[in-house]
Formats: sequence, C-alpha cells, structure tokens
Amino acid sequence: MEKRRNNRFEGRSGGFSNFEKRGNWKSSSMPNRAVANIVELKDGDYYSGTVKIMKKSQPGPVIFVVSDGYGSVDAVIKDSDYEVGDVIEISGTVNERAGRLQLEIESMRPSKKDFNLVLEENSAPKRTQFSIKSERLEKLKPYFIKIAKRIRKAVLESQPILIRHHADSDGITAGLAIEQSCKKFMEKIGVNPEYALYRSPSKAPFYEIADVFRDIILSNRLIEFKQKKPLIIVLDNGSTPEDVLGLKTLHSLGFEVIVVDHHNPVVIENKKTAVDAYVSLHLNPYIEGLDSQTCAGMLAYELGRMIFEEYENSKLPAVAGISDLCRIPETDEYIKNTGKTKEFLAKIGKGMDFIAYNIKFDSGKGLYDELFKNEKFVAILDEEVTTGFETQLQSTMPYLRTQDIDGVIFSYIDLEKYTVRFKYPAPGKVIGAIHDIIALQNENRPVITIGHLSDMIIFRASKAILPVQKIIKKLRKDLPSANVDGGGHEMAGAIKFVSAHLTDIIENIKQQIKDVKYLENSQEGKEEK
Amino acid sequence: MEKRRNNRFEGRSGGFSNFEKRGNWKSSSMPNRAVANIVELKDGDYYSGTVKIMKKSQPGPVIFVVSDGYGSVDAVIKDSDYEVGDVIEISGTVNERAGRLQLEIESMRPSKKDFNLVLEENSAPKRTQFSIKSERLEKLKPYFIKIAKRIRKAVLESQPILIRHHADSDGITAGLAIEQSCKKFMEKIGVNPEYALYRSPSKAPFYEIADVFRDIILSNRLIEFKQKKPLIIVLDNGSTPEDVLGLKTLHSLGFEVIVVDHHNPVVIENKKTAVDAYVSLHLNPYIEGLDSQTCAGMLAYELGRMIFEEYENSKLPAVAGISDLCRIPETDEYIKNTGKTKEFLAKIGKGMDFIAYNIKFDSGKGLYDELFKNEKFVAILDEEVTTGFETQLQSTMPYLRTQDIDGVIFSYIDLEKYTVRFKYPAPGKVIGAIHDIIALQNENRPVITIGHLSDMIIFRASKAILPVQKIIKKLRKDLPSANVDGGGHEMAGAIKFVSAHLTDIIENIKQQIKDVKYLENSQEGKEEK
Amino acid sequence: MEKRRNNRFEGRSGGFSNFEKRGNWKSSSMPNRAVANIVELKDGDYYSGTVKIMKKSQPGPVIFVVSDGYGSVDAVIKDSDYEVGDVIEISGTVNERAGRLQLEIESMRPSKKDFNLVLEENSAPKRTQFSIKSERLEKLKPYFIKIAKRIRKAVLESQPILIRHHADSDGITAGLAIEQSCKKFMEKIGVNPEYALYRSPSKAPFYEIADVFRDIILSNRLIEFKQKKPLIIVLDNGSTPEDVLGLKTLHSLGFEVIVVDHHNPVVIENKKTAVDAYVSLHLNPYIEGLDSQTCAGMLAYELGRMIFEEYENSKLPAVAGISDLCRIPETDEYIKNTGKTKEFLAKIGKGMDFIAYNIKFDSGKGLYDELFKNEKFVAILDEEVTTGFETQLQSTMPYLRTQDIDGVIFSYIDLEKYTVRFKYPAPGKVIGAIHDIIALQNENRPVITIGHLSDMIIFRASKAILPVQKIIKKLRKDLPSANVDGGGHEMAGAIKFVSAHLTDIIENIKQQIKDVKYLENSQEGKEEK
Repeated sequence: MEKRRNNRFEGRSGGFSNFEKRGNWKSSSMPNRAVANIVELKDGDYYSGTVKIMKKSQPGPVIFVVSDGYGSVDAVIKDSDYEVGDVIEISGTVNERAGRLQLEIESMRPSKKDFNLVLEENSAPKRTQFSIKSERLEKLKPYFIKIAKRIRKAVLESQPILIRHHADSDGITAGLAIEQSCKKFMEKIGVNPEYALYRSPSKAPFYEIADVFRDIILSNRLIEFKQKKPLIIVLDNGSTPEDVLGLKTLHSLGFEVIVVDHHNPVVIENKKTAVDAYVSLHLNPYIEGLDSQTCAGMLAYELGRMIFEEYENSKLPAVAGISDLCRIPETDEYIKNTGKTKEFLAKIGKGMDFIAYNIKFDSGKGLYDELFKNEKFVAILDEEVTTGFETQLQSTMPYLRTQDIDGVIFSYIDLEKYTVRFKYPAPGKVIGAIHDIIALQNENRPVITIGHLSDMIIFRASKAILPVQKIIKKLRKDLPSANVDGGGHEMAGAIKFVSAHLTDIIENIKQQIKDVKYLENSQEGKEEK
Repeated sequence: MEKRRNNRFEGRSGGFSNFEKRGNWKSSSMPNRAVANIVELKDGDYYSGTVKIMKKSQPGPVIFVVSDGYGSVDAVIKDSDYEVGDVIEISGTVNERAGRLQLEIESMRPSKKDFNLVLEENSAPKRTQFSIKSERLEKLKPYFIKIAKRIRKAVLESQPILIRHHADSDGITAGLAIEQSCKKFMEKIGVNPEYALYRSPSKAPFYEIADVFRDIILSNRLIEFKQKKPLIIVLDNGSTPEDVLGLKTLHSLGFEVIVVDHHNPVVIENKKTAVDAYVSLHLNPYIEGLDSQTCAGMLAYELGRMIFEEYENSKLPAVAGISDLCRIPETDEYIKNTGKTKEFLAKIGKGMDFIAYNIKFDSGKGLYDELFKNEKFVAILDEEVTTGFETQLQSTMPYLRTQDIDGVIFSYIDLEKYTVRFKYPAPGKVIGAIHDIIALQNENRPVITIGHLSDMIIFRASKAILPVQKIIKKLRKDLPSANVDGGGHEMAGAIKFVSAHLTDIIENIKQQIKDVKYLENSQEGKEEK
Repeated sequence: MEKRRNNRFEGRSGGFSNFEKRGNWKSSSMPNRAVANIVELKDGDYYSGTVKIMKKSQPGPVIFVVSDGYGSVDAVIKDSDYEVGDVIEISGTVNERAGRLQLEIESMRPSKKDFNLVLEENSAPKRTQFSIKSERLEKLKPYFIKIAKRIRKAVLESQPILIRHHADSDGITAGLAIEQSCKKFMEKIGVNPEYALYRSPSKAPFYEIADVFRDIILSNRLIEFKQKKPLIIVLDNGSTPEDVLGLKTLHSLGFEVIVVDHHNPVVIENKKTAVDAYVSLHLNPYIEGLDSQTCAGMLAYELGRMIFEEYENSKLPAVAGISDLCRIPETDEYIKNTGKTKEFLAKIGKGMDFIAYNIKFDSGKGLYDELFKNEKFVAILDEEVTTGFETQLQSTMPYLRTQDIDGVIFSYIDLEKYTVRFKYPAPGKVIGAIHDIIALQNENRPVITIGHLSDMIIFRASKAILPVQKIIKKLRKDLPSANVDGGGHEMAGAIKFVSAHLTDIIENIKQQIKDVKYLENSQEGKEEK
C-alpha cells in the first residue's frame, strides 16, 4: 500500500501539481538549502526527516501539521491516507505563503523511529540555571527540572495547558511567567498559543471547586474540538487541605495537575502533603523545609526560564517579591536585575492589584503585560490607587476604636459601615493600611488591628503574639455553632463565621489577647524581634 | 512538470477534474457499491438520489451539505449555481477524507420530488413505546408523538434547537435527556451538534423574561450566521401564568416554543392553560388530569427515546424521580431498569444539585454527564454534600425556635443570620434538612418549618393542613402593601415580600396556623394520610 | 470573454487552472461590463483599477481582500508575493460564488498612486444636512462633520470600531444610531461588521475604568487576530471629570477616542473640558454654550446620517428626546418625522429601559432593534412596565413620610425596606414615580423627594430651589468622613456616602432645605417658572 502511494504521484498527471510550483519569485532562483530541523526552516529550504502528524485538515488538499519532535510546520499534499499520530519520513520544499511556511510534500513513507525518545530528549530543559544565586532555589532545583520537562513535553505534543493562579499580584506574576514562557516556546516551535494556552485567576485563596468545574467544562469543549485533555498548572494556590476537594475531583476524572505554590501546606508528613495523592508534580518550599518567603512569582519565573531558555522578564519576580513582602536577599537580587527602583516596581504590583479588583474573573489578557511596557500607565494607576487609599482612610480612621489590652494596642472597626462600597481598595486592603498607620505610631508595642464585615474578620498584627490559627481553634471550641473557618499566620489572616455571632467573636478575641498576658510576659515580648 | 498540468485539464471538460480522480487507494480497486440512503454510505460507495441543499460554502471549490431528508453528507464540485434550498438529483462516488465522507459530484440536475413529503415521513418517530409500563405515560402518548415528531423534523432540517430547563436535578436530567438524544440523532444523520444544539439552565422556577431576552439575542446571532430561527424547548418550566410574559414575548417575535413541564399550570380550562396561546406544543400531565408525580426528567427521557430510537440512558429518569420525591410505581420501575440502588442514584441527584449551585448559569456541558459515567466522581461530591449539610445544621439547629401552636409543631429561624453564606447547601436546602429532622422527631403531629431571609420565607410542612397558596392569599389581603408573592403547594413553597413587613408576616402565618384549629379538628387531622 | 479566460492560463504554466473553468451558467453568455468602482461590481463584470490590499489569506490559493478606497472585494490568484498594505494595479473578471463576488486576478503590478488621498476624499461625509431644522444643531455642525469623517475613514480602512454608551434609553438609542449607520456603511462597501463593529453598554453614568479595562482586553484580542487597533467611540458619557481616569488610561496606551455626550462637562475653559487632552474629537453642546437638552440620541442619530448617507431611522432621536425629557422644539420635530404618537414612542423608550434592566451588561444585539420593528413586542413590554410601577408604588406610597419644611413639600422613604427587590423598576425609577405623584398633588409648591438605600440617596425636585451639587458641597464640609460623592443638577441627582452616616445626611439635607427659607423668599420662589 505504501508503495502505491509514491507511485501515485509519479505516474499521474500530478494531482497536486498545482501546489508544487507556485512561482515563488523571491526564492525560485536560489538553490534549495537542505535543513535538518523544522524550526530553522526558511522560505525555499528543502527538508527531509522523520515527523509525527499532529493534525490533518480537509477538505480541499490535505494540510498536515507535522512535528519533528520540536518544530512544527504545515505540510501539504493533494491527498493522503496517513492520519494523526502516524510517524513518517517526509521530504519536500518549503515555501512561505502569507508569512507562513508550508512544506510541499514530495515523498512520504512510514518510519520505524521511536518518536517518544525524540520527544523525551527534547523535553529536557535546555537551561537549568536560575537567574540569581540562591541557596533556597538550589535546594528546590530537582523539582524545577522535573516540572519544566513535563510542561515542555506538553508544549511539544500540542497538549493544551490551563493555568490557574491566585488573583493577587504574586499569583498574577506567577501566571504571567508561565503564560509568557509557554507562549514564546510555542511560537518558536510553531504551535498556536491561541488554542493551546489558557490562563484564569482564582478569586479564592485556594483552587475552589467552582473553578475546577469551570476548568472541566472548558476541557470538555477542547476535547470536543479534537484537542488533547489539558495539563492543568495551579500557581500560588493548590498546596493546602482546602485544595483537596478540587484536586481529588480532577484526579477522579483523569486530569493531570501540577502545583507550584509557596503557601504553608499545613499538613506535611515525610515530604507528602494533603494534595500529593492527586497531583503529578508539586513544588512548594515548605516540602523542603523552607517557608513562604520564596513566593510563587519567583518560583514560576524561574520555572518559566527553564520551560523556554530564551525567556526573560526580570521585573516579574521582583514585583512579586515586593508585593508579597518577601524579606529575603533574593528579593533584592531580583530588584537589582531589573535596573529599576523598588518604589517603581512596587507601583507595578499595586497597579496589578487595582486591575484585578476591576476586571474580577477576567484573565486580563494583554492588560497586565502593559504594566511592564508602559511607565505612563503605571503612573496613572498609581495615582488612582493612592487617592483610593486616602479616601478610604478618611472614612474609617475617625471611627477606629483603639484600646490598650494589657499592653497590646487593639483596634477594630466595622468595615461595612465605614468604607465606601464598590470602590478600590476593598475592605481587606483598607484594614491593612489602617494597621500600618497604628503600628507606625506604636513601634515598640504589639499592635493588633481587626476589621469586620457581617460574617468575616480580617486580622493584622505587628508582632507574633497570637497566631490566627490559634484564635480560630479557640473560637471553634468556645462557639461551635458559629462554624468558624479561615486561615492565615502570625501576622495576618481572615476569620469567617455565621454572622449571628459577630459580637461574641470580637469579645472572644479580646479575651484571647488578654489571656496572652503580654505585660506580664513583656520581657519576653520585648526581646522578640 | 508544468506541461503535464495543462494536459491534465485540456483533455477534459471539467474544471474540477482534480476532485474527481483522487486515487482513493482503499477502495479504488473494489467495485463501487451503490447505496440508497446517505446515512449508510461508506468510503468508496456510489450514491444516486434526490437531495436538498442545506448549506453551500466557498471560496475554493463548492462544498455543499446535501440531505436526502434523513442523512447529510458533504458533496463537492468545482463550481455550481445551485443554491441552498434547491432540491436536485445528484450522483457521485463517496470518499473518506480525514475521517469524513465526501461525495464527489458527477451529475446534478433539478428534481421535481416533493421534498416536504420525505421530511414529513422521516420525522415520524420510529420508536413509540415507553421504556416502562405506565398508565400515566400511556394517557399522554399522543403528546409525546407529536412533540417527538416536531423535534425530529427540526433536526432533519438543521434548525437549531435551544433547550431551557429548570436548574434543579429534575430539570437538569430533563435537559440532558433532550440534549443527548438530539445529539445522537444529529451525529447519526450527519448534522454538527456544535452549531445546532444549545442548552441553558433557568435559575428561576419559571421561564423568566431575562432568560427569554438572552435566548432572543443568541437566536439573532445564529440568524446572522445564516442559521434558521431556532426551535425553543422549555423543560420543567413553562406551564404556569408566570411563564406567560416570556412565552408571549417569544410568540410576538415569531418564535416557536414547545413546553414539557410537570408543574401545576394553576389555570386550566378545557385542557387549555394560560400559556397555550403562545406555544406550539405543550406536554403537562395536569392537562390530562394527572399530577406532578410524573416529573420532567421522566417525561423528557421518554421523549428523548422517541426523538432517536437508539437513545438510552436509563439512569436519567430514575435520578429525576428520586430527586423530585415522586412516590409513584414509575419511579421504582425506572430504578429497577438501572440495575443500581436507590441510594446510589440519589447521590447522582445530589451531585447535580451541588454542581448547579457552583456553576450557576453555566450549562455545565459535559460535566453533568460525568456523574453518569464515573462513580468515583459521584462519591467525592456526595462526601462534600454530606459535610455541607452537617456544617449548616450545626450552625442553625441550636437557634431554631420551636413552639406548639394548638397541636402543630411550628419552627422558624433566620437563615441569613444563622447559615454560612456562599456555601453549599443554600438556605432553601438547609430549611428542608431542618424540617426533615423535626418531622422525624414528631411523626404523629403536623410539623411546619419556615426559614426566612430578609424578603423571603421558605415553607415546609409534614401534613397538608395549610397550603402555601392559602397562606399567600391571606397575607395579600391582610398586608396589601407587603406585595406578597410566591408559590408552592401543601407541603412546600416560597413566599416573597417587601422586607419591611417580615415580622408582621411571620406573626400572620402563626395566626393562620392557630386558625386551622388543628387540635379541635384533630380527629380529621389524624385521619388525613 | 470566457475564451479570454482560458487563453490567459493556457499560455502560462496554469498553476491555478482549476479556477478558470467554473462554468458560470448564469452569466457566461453576456458580454463583460467594465466597471470602475468596486461597490458597483456585479457577477460577470470586468474590473481594472488601483487597490490596496486589506487582507491576505492562505493556505490554498491566495485570497486577497482589496479595496479601491471605498468598496472591497475578494480577489483570488494562485499565488502572490504582494502583502497587506501594498497598493497595486489589478485587473480581472468578477464572478459570483455562493452569493459572494470574487475577482479572478488577471494582472497585478505595483502602483504609485497616493492611496491616502483617495481615502481622505472618500472619508468626507456625502451628506451634511441634518434631518430637522435646528439652530442648536447648526451651531455644532463643524463637530459633526469632523467626527463623521473620522469614523468613515475608520470604516474605509477596516479599523474596528468599539462603541461604549450609557445604558439608559438615550444612551442606547445613541449606540444604536452609530452601530446601525456603521453597519449599513460597512455592508455597502463590503466590510464584515461581525469583526469590525462592537457595542457595549456602560452601567455607570461615566466611562468607568472597569469598562476601559474590558475594552483594552477586547482590543488586545483583536490585535492578536491581526486586526488594527480599534477606534473607540463613547456616547452619552465621556465629557466629565469622572471620565478622566479612563480616557487618560486609554490615551497612555495609544488609543484614539471620540466622545459624543450632552452631559454638563462641569469643567470648561476656553472651550476645553477636563477630557480634551485625552480624546481626538469631542462633541458636547455645552462646549458651544448650549445645554443637555440636545440629548445624545439626537446627536448620534444626526452623526449616523452623516456617517452613511443612506441611513435613516427617524424613531431613534424621537425616543431619545422623549425618554430624556428634552423640552425643546427639536423633540417635537423628531416626533413629527416618525409619523407616530408621542405616547407610542414613549413606550419604546420604556421598553428599552426594561430590557436594559434585565440583560444588564449584554449589548442586546438585535433585541433593541425589535422594538422599532414590532409594535406587538412594544405593547407586551409596556404592559409589564406599567404593572411593575403599580406594584412598587403599592409597596412604597403608604410608607412615604412627607412634611412641610418652611413651605417646601419634603418626602422621604427607605427604598431598600419598602421596594420589591430584583424587580423592575429599580429603586431609582421608583423614587421618580413617587416624586411625580407628590409633585402633581402640589403643583404650586416646591416638592423635594428623596429615596435612600443604605449608602445612597436619590434626589428629585419640582423646582430649582436647591441644586444637588450645592447639597453635596455642604455635606462634604459638614461630614467630611462620610466621603460624600455623586452628581446631578437642580432637579435630579444621586448622592453616595459611607453608610454609617445615613441619618446625619438626611437631617443635614432637611436643614439645608430649611436654610433656603422658601416662604420668606417665596415671592421670588413663586416667580420662578
């Protein structure tokens, strides 16, 4: 049967002859250059090699997309029985048509080459060095390499990639880093990112089931349009027990998920977290005994550089580190690499936050990218952010109630009542700004500031005297029917509950502060850094 | 080589010779099989018959989609003046190209055949037996046959179909039954469901005007893309006076709507309901003197089986019947047909409800279907549903106020204050679970449980001593400016009102319960089933 | 001529011979007509002239879209190195294929013609007279001509157009006028409006940053699909200081924006408003010393008629004028032109408002247009609107508190508490209806009516005794931490604030009314019209 195929073209009136000799004036007089890799092909070159058929379209003449395990190119022939997935030897001349290369197939025959080996080889990242010196990162390198390899393989195989990331500045920079690097890699090897790369923000600080359902629905659509089942990458979310429901669901439906997060997984035993049974690869500094200071934007940026060795965007990890208040030398290194000031980079982070507040669940395609290209845009948003904070502080500061509880400066305010609704910044950010002011006025004292909505308290502290997790534990014990929930760490967190119990909960927290007996233990308290 | 090309075409009359002679190796050596029906065509067959042109696309060669009144196939020719809607005699050989059949037209001439007769004939359902024995269903059979015929005709004519269904488990199973059967029928006859079949949930328990507007907008888009005006099918909604505004609007704009519902139409005179002037076909058991126990999921499933005679999905009507608490022998028959336990099927229904809560207005394309294929997925969601109910009961039960009103156990609770917000299950489901607990504790007494939000009361009763419609009527009389609205029956319902009157309304309902004088009439009360 | 075609290719290597011989039976026997303008081409005509390449697509044969600076047509050739943007001389015969004309290129060579001159010439509006006599409009004519020219140029160059308009009846009619005229113009010259014309409503009464971000995201998508950066047109919004943030942002990103608005720009110095530095063209009657009575729907309609000289839809400006209560002779002129009664046209306006309420952020593509075509549809919606108002008045009127403050009839009501939620009409419309009733009962007295939500007051007055801007100014001074904001004029407005201060604000407004000393100044008061 294969024989017949070659014969077909020789002995016949040239069924696809009208595709062969389109006078391509620019190149027709040059001798054809023989090129071994598809990515290096130029108009007029001659190619001969082993490829896998990635796509086949009709009607009209057959247009294949063929890949040599790295680059892809359109290959055209009048007709052919070869199908998607076949590995074949082809040869032909390449012509440029409307800015797109097209190989006009002269011969095709089956190949016995093990194409998986080629893929495996090309998947290994070509760049394995980080952009900065960092012991933290070096400790995590094996994770980076494995994950970069897996993502590169997905790109090489045209497997769609779905990126889900937390919707704060750190999560967004992480999302951009993976999106940008994959996109550049795809463009390099001839895959159209429009149909192979998706990025969506998660409003919740975990990969909640509603987002998971949406991702399954999108995947079903892709599969209906004959795409592969996507690879899902979760960034700045995904490591904690709250993520289990979503990841377990995806696992039960046969999805492969990769998690890159820096939040405390809470549960870790023998380097295994609560989500590890449901994900294929998981990078989190806590697993290797580190902490959240190496933020998601840093991790994802370094990963992006390994996904595609030509990818660079030095501002991303710097903005992430500043926005997430990472007080480690890595942050300074990243800032240095940008050639910009910390102040300017901080404005980009604030601009991201402002955009995210306004576009809600939209991925902001192309919009965040403008912050990295256009300083005027950054300045306009910064001015608006500054005014926004001033307005909200003007409304709230006069109504903040502050008291001294056994040496601890405790303040609280009803954010629903005293903030301007539907206006940036949102209540959570407002309480942060209020806290910073009170803390600055009381540098030598522990300052705890809470803002409440009807069913939530936002907590900020200047010293680690009362961790949020401990508060929540005690509230759950004392007020079981309040169904207290939430999370956070020593300095910040959120506590959710059934609204009926608001007053009791605030009183309970005050009592918990009293029970710390800060003044009594103040010697210790003051020695704490 | 160029010379050769000219030769090829010079000797022939046909400019599209390059479409005729594509050596199709698989079949070229076999004698061509002559086939009479398009649906039975295989690679290499020869077809000759009367067809209608459904679609014509260019540029490049003309590609028609032609239908013999049942199956459709692509038919290609270099050029042609025939247009969409023309009925013609064609002949040619069929070849498979990239998994798709294509008829290469050899001859075309006008036909005088009455194509509508062919369509009419093929529209008649091929299967007219129900999947179970049921007197109820038999009584409704003429409705089923008419509606199945109309929908089959729409499919055969490539008229787009828009399915709107209530967003609870019964409505969703109904939607899936019609979607799945139409899809399979379309695939059988060669219509692409991607552009011809749409399904959307209605959040309201009726076909509200906002959904109607959205459907008109979608239809306008389809028409702009040269599709026919869609046929709209309303499931588990559509029979009541609340549906009149929407259906009247669609009617005024020339839309054809079919309603399949099992809710009490309230208004019925001489088998005519309030909506009948605006819909083309209406199936509702009440019209034939039956009740809501034959739920929408059952009706739509049996309809689906008549739309396409090869369609089966026995779990659908069983899940619907269990979810809608249909206590008729049909439910048991459906359960038996699945080979699954009632407990397992109930979990699918709860999983649907959980998904619907999370994806809101999305149709959940492909997602609900997973519940019928993947038991692990069902189990994961069931665990989450169970935990959700436990959490909400823990928050609410301690604050439920229960009193004995003349022998009636009356309980009420503020659901806004005592439930966890934005967490499954929603308040309506929570009050149901609370009521079930109280009812179980007081099996010999009538139990009435109400949960209120600021402008709504959800009502549940264990005995039919005070119908919701009666409560609403009295409230309207006593508190006219509260603008009381809502609906339901003896055992369950919802009452909406202007929030200012909440307290008065609760007191009024208590008084209405007192007025029942249950103890006095208790002999009667106890004899009631 | 058919012969010519064959000759043409016979002498050549005939690469695209399969395009030559499509027997085009209808026209093949007619002599070819030579036509000079692309828009006048018909099947079988011969064209020869200078064109610019607007689009080039492959694979398969090259299909260009070429424009002679006015009309566009598909032009096909086997292969070509000419690219988008090239200006060339072409010739060839036109054939109709599936209802679409296609020029089969016989010759192509570079042209030295200054194509911009052609464009410039064709951009000048062909119609420059208004549809009614109006001194107001005449005063603004230079603005109309410049803006019409700019939009015509965008259409001629296939630059996408994004229309943003306020979401009330005036703004929607304005949006429709520009959308409809551009669409008809595009269809005339062969541009596909599906990819070149977008319309979206703004819910806010200004071009808020969230909408701006969405428009940037859409533009980025268009650019990714190789379209030009869109031209943005803002209607019935865009002139005020609140619009600065959005317009400044767009300007910093290189967008061109045109504003057509009739709201008071507040800031005007030497005919320059706060937004003029950021927009390319700005039409607002205030700039020329006029007022808001020439509403956006009128302005946009007259503009639309200049964008495309064949465009008419006389109901649009009439509906806009009635809905926006424009008491100028122009409104009567527009009504007269429709041949319809004011009552009927008012119903269209109310129907628009009802639709906008229900479809929220959707553009309502095709839906609003139905109101202008289908009187039955108008009647159905009008009935629903009437019932809606009756219901809301029934809930609210009994609870309206009215008092006489020094001769001023002052009424207020809590709209959250006393209106039916999520039901048309929304609180703002309800307070308007309430005010109209009270004003009618007190025709000789100034009537002020306010309705409040938790963080907003809606203000209506029957006499201009206390402008909203003045109220806001005083509130800001007296209650700085309430962060009072809002806008409006002497008779109507909205005041937003931090919810904690609601009671103080109402008391303050009462005091301000007392301070007017209406009775004392009543002589003056009564002389005011």
